[in-house]
Amino acid sequence: MRIGELSRRTGVPVPTIKYYVREGLLPPGELSSPNQASYDDGHERRLRLIRALLEVGGLSVAAIGDVLASIDDKEQPVHKLLGTAAQRLVPEYGDAGCQEDAEAVLARERVARLIEARGWRLHPGNKAAGALAAALASLGRVGYGSFAELLDEYAEAAERVARADLGYAARRTDREDLVEAVVVGTVVGDAMFAALRRMAQVDVSSRLFAQGGQE
Amino acid sequence: MRIGELSRRTGVPVPTIKYYVREGLLPPGELSSPNQASYDDGHERRLRLIRALLEVGGLSVAAIGDVLASIDDKEQPVHKLLGTAAQRLVPEYGDAGCQEDAEAVLARERVARLIEARGWRLHPGNKAAGALAAALASLGRVGYGSFAELLDEYAEAAERVARADLGYAARRTDREDLVEAVVVGTVVGDAMFAALRRMAQVDVSSRLFAQGGQE
Repeated sequence: MRIGELSRRTGVPVPTIKYYVREGLLPPGELSSPNQASYDDGHERRLRLIRALLEVGGLSVAAIGDVLASIDDKEQPVHKLLGTAAQRLVPEYGDAGCQEDAEAVLARERVARLIEARGWRLHPGNKAAGALAAALASLGRVGYGSFAELLDEYAEAAERVARADLGYAARRTDREDLVEAVVVGTVVGDAMFAALRRMAQVDVSSRLFAQGGQE
Repeated sequence: MRIGELSRRTGVPVPTIKYYVREGLLPPGELSSPNQASYDDGHERRLRLIRALLEVGGLSVAAIGDVLASIDDKEQPVHKLLGTAAQRLVPEYGDAGCQEDAEAVLARERVARLIEARGWRLHPGNKAAGALAAALASLGRVGYGSFAELLDEYAEAAERVARADLGYAARRTDREDLVEAVVVGTVVGDAMFAALRRMAQVDVSSRLFAQGGQE
């Protein structure tokens, strides 16, 4: 199909499609004449994936480029690749993560104990574990260190969700399909869980504080 | 204390503190002489809260202003206030949420059925429910509509986490303290859960795909 048709099918404006091609997110169309390129279903699918990561996942164009490169790298075994994708999908924190104080040390110890207690098999440099420690340290600095009491309950819920995620992904037999499912699920799953948590909070809060009223 | 001391205690540079005062996030210090202002523990605590929302929560300065205004509004009953804070803390999605197509209609129906099935008491215009529908519609458009099969499992985990969140908040008797705990917990809790989910995914993935290997 021509670029105009690709734009109609996906709802992505033509200049935006051209921008994604220039940034290397979308492979160029096949030249059918010197100034006309032809696009196929693969382009359409990739374009929808880019939009999902951008609009629902809130990833930057650069981060999406990294994630797509890891999907397209056929050399890596599936598990390594999932690890790489998960590492790249960890949100980056600003200065909070770098501050080296007593709270940072305490938070890292706390995370190490949690990993040990749950028997999670993680590489020592796991980026998500670093992000968790940074979040806990930041809580400590703001005077809400006791929020870390909820860590076990959160970890139990996270394990439950992760098992569902991987179970969903494992039903896909095609390699690219599997990795794409994990990437989409990881990014969109964050948004889904955050929304559900707020909905459940409103319900629980109305039962606790509003004596039978509705929000 | 003087502004230099406040800066040393919190690690926030003096020009940044002045910027927060200009933006209305931080109340001005009390003038002790025509060109010298004095700050107290309340300023220090508020400054740490701003940093946590900014660095761990990833909120914009404008969003932080909204959240702080709702904390400081003493008129509202606690439950209303928690609802307002939760609504303001829902991430905004781009065009994805506005697209009105078959996927959007299906997604809204799906969310309505979920709320019904769980017996959650939510206002019809609940923003988090809208964000969830937008995420589901986006998944449908990218060809991963089947990911919505995981919705029940996610909702179960979210309810568990929300009960823990509110249980933590409810132990605080001071009104400002309670609301601050919910705000910090809501924002930082997202980051905490996202990190834990990735850690658990790596563990589950290594068990499923790597036959005994470590990430």
